[in-house]
Amino acid sequence: MNRICFLNVVALLLIAASFRAPARADSPADKASHKEHAAKAKGTRTIGIVLYPMFETLDVFGPVEVFGNVTQGLKVVTVAEKAGPVTSAQGPKVEADYGFDDCPPLDLLLVPGGMGTLAEVKNPAMLNWLRQRAEKAEIVMSVCSGSAILAEAGLLDGRKATSNKRYFQVAVDHGPKVNWIRKARWVDDGDRVTSSGVSAGIDMSLAVIARLYGEATADKIADLTEYQWHRDADNDPFYREGE
Amino acid sequence: MNRICFLNVVALLLIAASFRAPARADSPADKASHKEHAAKAKGTRTIGIVLYPMFETLDVFGPVEVFGNVTQGLKVVTVAEKAGPVTSAQGPKVEADYGFDDCPPLDLLLVPGGMGTLAEVKNPAMLNWLRQRAEKAEIVMSVCSGSAILAEAGLLDGRKATSNKRYFQVAVDHGPKVNWIRKARWVDDGDRVTSSGVSAGIDMSLAVIARLYGEATADKIADLTEYQWHRDADNDPFYREGE
Repeated sequence: MNRICFLNVVALLLIAASFRAPARADSPADKASHKEHAAKAKGTRTIGIVLYPMFETLDVFGPVEVFGNVTQGLKVVTVAEKAGPVTSAQGPKVEADYGFDDCPPLDLLLVPGGMGTLAEVKNPAMLNWLRQRAEKAEIVMSVCSGSAILAEAGLLDGRKATSNKRYFQVAVDHGPKVNWIRKARWVDDGDRVTSSGVSAGIDMSLAVIARLYGEATADKIADLTEYQWHRDADNDPFYREGE
Repeated sequence: MNRICFLNVVALLLIAASFRAPARADSPADKASHKEHAAKAKGTRTIGIVLYPMFETLDVFGPVEVFGNVTQGLKVVTVAEKAGPVTSAQGPKVEADYGFDDCPPLDLLLVPGGMGTLAEVKNPAMLNWLRQRAEKAEIVMSVCSGSAILAEAGLLDGRKATSNKRYFQVAVDHGPKVNWIRKARWVDDGDRVTSSGVSAGIDMSLAVIARLYGEATADKIADLTEYQWHRDADNDPFYREGE
């Protein structure tokens, strides 16, 4: 039972090196423009995953899984109002690496959904921080009801966006100036990309990876994670007429 | 922008109450048999999600998402060798609610995969704890290369099981007495259920939920999370002949 095939271990380490070694170099904190930074430090980006109490776990960890397997210098960090453990809607607690006050520059930003959305649309600390960071980010994303928070912050005004089926009216109520698309797996509006419910965040993330790092990279990650990627943003099997 | 539709909030709270309220009552720690406990406290179960350094995030949070949305009294807890933050393969840290020494009785047990597998198959603390807990558990599950750890612990001897495509030979090397099935989305061998890579853990978890709580419950959760459930355990789109 303790026998280990040396060659297999070597092969696994090679696979690990090729698929898993994320660039851990911190972005310089004193850059005036994060966009400039992203352009200057070729291929080096940081994605900030926003956490808040009662976030939906798969909204976070679908995207974390796929962005975390990009090997072209993409660092994944978690951020909440305060650093430390944040309790999810499903129970488990996830550590926020940074608080809003000490979070490094972020090139990509992702806001999950979940029942906690209802509190966060009324949280000025969250809304102000998102406004500040969105201005400097290359792409701002949301999963599920996370788009209601972005909408309340005014970050989707005049844009096309979507949200979770079950929370759709909440999103609409918080974004009267948003062009809400009900039937969509995700909606790509350039530097704003929003997805429908929970698992749709994986599809959206793979599409963003394809845009930033090429289709082959996204394909490799979908295969690595044995995920059947829904490649068509408009193909929404969970949309029901009249809902 | 600050306008909130009161009726929508009420509707959301009702949805939340119906879908999200997990039973948080602790199981009595002094029960001699966990199986007896499961039978006695009708419908009340605890699922322990095992964490270790360099676990694969979606292996954990795919199942956490679906088990965490069961409303018939299923509590989700995380457990590692020591309680506290555990770093995943993708970077983010997740809190282990319990250490091996203070973990409550577990009715269901799930072991994820990831690069950390290579260390855990040589970790006597992990292997011994799994042997002790598996004996008393209703169902022991693994995702991805987690089956190599179960195999090394002898918990799959004489059983049918599967593993991640990319780690398959490692699983085989650690389980010479296991009937390994290469082409499978997941393999159900009664009180041992093992899944293929990463996303397959969601399909396996939904199948276990269907067994324990009925097909309608599993369907509702798949719909809630907008996940296209692969219902056929033998339908494995990631299997390639000769690999």
